[in-house]
Amino acid sequence: MAEKVTIATVAQHARVSRQTVSNVINAPHIVRPETRQRVQDAIVTLGYRANQAARQMRTGRSRLIAVRIEPTRDGINGSVLDRFLHGLTETAEASGYRVMLYTAADDDREIATYGDLLSAYDLDGFVITGTDHGDPRTAWLAEREIPFVTFGRPWDHLQSHSWVDVDGAAGTAAATAHLIAAGHRRTGFIGWPAGSGVGDDRRAGWRRALVETSVDPTALDAETEDGIAEGARAARELLDRPAPPTALVCASDSLALGAMQTLRTAGADLPVIGFDDTPVAAAVGLSSVSQPLGDAAARCVDLLTDLLDGPRHGPRQVLLRPALVLRHPA
Amino acid sequence: MAEKVTIATVAQHARVSRQTVSNVINAPHIVRPETRQRVQDAIVTLGYRANQAARQMRTGRSRLIAVRIEPTRDGINGSVLDRFLHGLTETAEASGYRVMLYTAADDDREIATYGDLLSAYDLDGFVITGTDHGDPRTAWLAEREIPFVTFGRPWDHLQSHSWVDVDGAAGTAAATAHLIAAGHRRTGFIGWPAGSGVGDDRRAGWRRALVETSVDPTALDAETEDGIAEGARAARELLDRPAPPTALVCASDSLALGAMQTLRTAGADLPVIGFDDTPVAAAVGLSSVSQPLGDAAARCVDLLTDLLDGPRHGPRQVLLRPALVLRHPA
Repeated sequence: MAEKVTIATVAQHARVSRQTVSNVINAPHIVRPETRQRVQDAIVTLGYRANQAARQMRTGRSRLIAVRIEPTRDGINGSVLDRFLHGLTETAEASGYRVMLYTAADDDREIATYGDLLSAYDLDGFVITGTDHGDPRTAWLAEREIPFVTFGRPWDHLQSHSWVDVDGAAGTAAATAHLIAAGHRRTGFIGWPAGSGVGDDRRAGWRRALVETSVDPTALDAETEDGIAEGARAARELLDRPAPPTALVCASDSLALGAMQTLRTAGADLPVIGFDDTPVAAAVGLSSVSQPLGDAAARCVDLLTDLLDGPRHGPRQVLLRPALVLRHPA
Repeated sequence: MAEKVTIATVAQHARVSRQTVSNVINAPHIVRPETRQRVQDAIVTLGYRANQAARQMRTGRSRLIAVRIEPTRDGINGSVLDRFLHGLTETAEASGYRVMLYTAADDDREIATYGDLLSAYDLDGFVITGTDHGDPRTAWLAEREIPFVTFGRPWDHLQSHSWVDVDGAAGTAAATAHLIAAGHRRTGFIGWPAGSGVGDDRRAGWRRALVETSVDPTALDAETEDGIAEGARAARELLDRPAPPTALVCASDSLALGAMQTLRTAGADLPVIGFDDTPVAAAVGLSSVSQPLGDAAARCVDLLTDLLDGPRHGPRQVLLRPALVLRHPA
C-alpha cells in the first residue's frame, strides 16, 4: 500500500498552503474556483479522505440538511414541492450546505426516518414540508432540540418555531378581488374540505374578499377532494345552483382544470383562477396564484443557518406574498 | 458533561444486544421496525453519535449516493428527471442508501462539484443523468475509478460503463406505427436539431417506422429547438409543405403541445403524439410515449450496488422499453 496521504501531501501536490487545503475542505465557497479545483483534483487523485467526521471535529458542522421527497408524486400539484426542492438545493449549496433526501409515507414513518438519519449521519438539521395542525414531527424534533425549519406554518402556535410560508389567503383574496373588479361579484370558490391548515387559509382569503364587498360567500362555496374530476364535478354542482357564480377561484390548478373542462362542455364562458401556477396552468393558459418557491427555499436556508449559528434570536417567521399570474386560455 | 455514551449504553437503554445496535446503525433494513425504532430512539435520546466515519470503518460504505438536480427547471419536460429522482430516492432507501443532491450549470462545473463532494463526503458513488456524446463527466469519474452508473447511454462506446436507458427509438417507432396503422402513412416528425444522442435516437425510431412502409421521411421531418412556441412554428411550417403530414410524432410534449395549438388554430384535425407523458400531456389529453422512470431508477440502484459489491461482472447495461399512452384531447 502507498504511504499515508496527509493534508501536507495534498498541499504539496496542489502547490498551496495547508491552510488552503483545509479551507477547500471546510469552507470551499471561500476559495477561488481555480485553486479549489486544483486542490480537489489533488485530493481525489491522491485518494485523500478528508472525511466528514474529521471535518466535523474541526467545524462542528456536517453541512448536511435533510428534506423529504414524496415517494410518488401527484402529477400536477407535486411539481410545487419539486420546485421548492430545486431552489433549496441551489441556495443551500450557495451557503455551503448539501441536501440529503428521504421519503416517508406518513408522519409516524417520517419520525422513524429522523431516527434512521440521525443515527447514521450527523445531520445539521431538517427542512420539514407539509405542516398541519398539531404536527407530531415538529414536536418530536423540538423535544430533542434538533434544529429544523418548516416550509409551512405550525397552524396552532405560530411562534413555536422558525418557519417560512406563503400567504395563501392573500393569494386567493387578490384573485377574488381581481374578478370582482372585472364585474364578478358572484365569484365562487372550489376548495378542499374544511380542516387542513393550507386549505382553510386559501378559502379564508376568498371569503374575506367577498365579505368586503358585502357578498355572502355561503351559497358560492363548494368543497371537494383535490383532483381534475373532482373540480369538474364541483363546478357542475355550482353552475346548477339557483344563483350560480359568474367566475371561479380554486384552491389548486387541478381543481381549476376540472372546472375549465366543465365550463367548456357547458359552453359557459366564466373566468377561472387556479392556485400554484403549475406547468399545466402555463400550458393551457390558466390564470393562477404563484408561490415564490425559490425565495421560500432561500429563506428556509437562511433561518436554518441562523439556528445553527447559535441562539442569537428566538424562532423567526417569514410569510411571503404570492403573485397573481393572469393568462388567457389558448 | 455527561459520561461518554457508547454502543453498550445504547444497547442497555433499548434493552437489546450490542449486535442489534450495530445492525441498526450499519444495516437498518435487516432489523424489525419496532426494535429499530426503539434503538434509534435510544440513540437520539442519549445523543449517541454513531457517525458516518465510524460506521464506514466497519462496513466500508457511506451508503450515500449523489445525483444532480437542475438548478432551475423547464416547466414541462423537467418533470421527467424529477420523477426519476423520486424513484431513485425511494429505491435507494429500500437498499439502505440515501441520496444526496447537487446542482451544476454545465459539465465543467459538475466535474468541479464531484471534487467538492468527494473531498467533503465519503460518497459511495454517483448516478449521472443527461449523458451525451463524448461525455467528460463519465471520463473523469472512470479515470479516478469512482463508482458510477448513468441514466442515459454513453452514445459513443456502449460497453464502456454501466448504464440504464430507455429505448427512445422504440417509443417513437411504436407511436409512428400506431399512426400508420390508423391510415396515416404521411406521419411527420418534429424533433431537435441533429447531434444530440437522445434527439437523434427519437428521430431514428420514427424514420425506421416510415421506411418500413416505404415512405420517404425526408419531406416530413422538421428540426427545431425544444419549446411550445417552437413546436407551434414547426407544425405550421410542416402544414405549409406541398404534401403535408396527416399526423405528427414529436420528440417532446412541449413540441407536441405547440403543434396542437397550431392545429387547433388552423382547424386541422391531425392526431399528435408527444414524448415523456408529462402531467401536462395527461391534463390536456395528449397521447405520449411514457418512460418507465421508476423502473429505470430501480435498475440504476441495482447496477450501482453491484459495482459497490465488487467487480464480479464487467459493466452492465439495461435498455428499457417505453410505453405508448393513448388519449383523446379534452
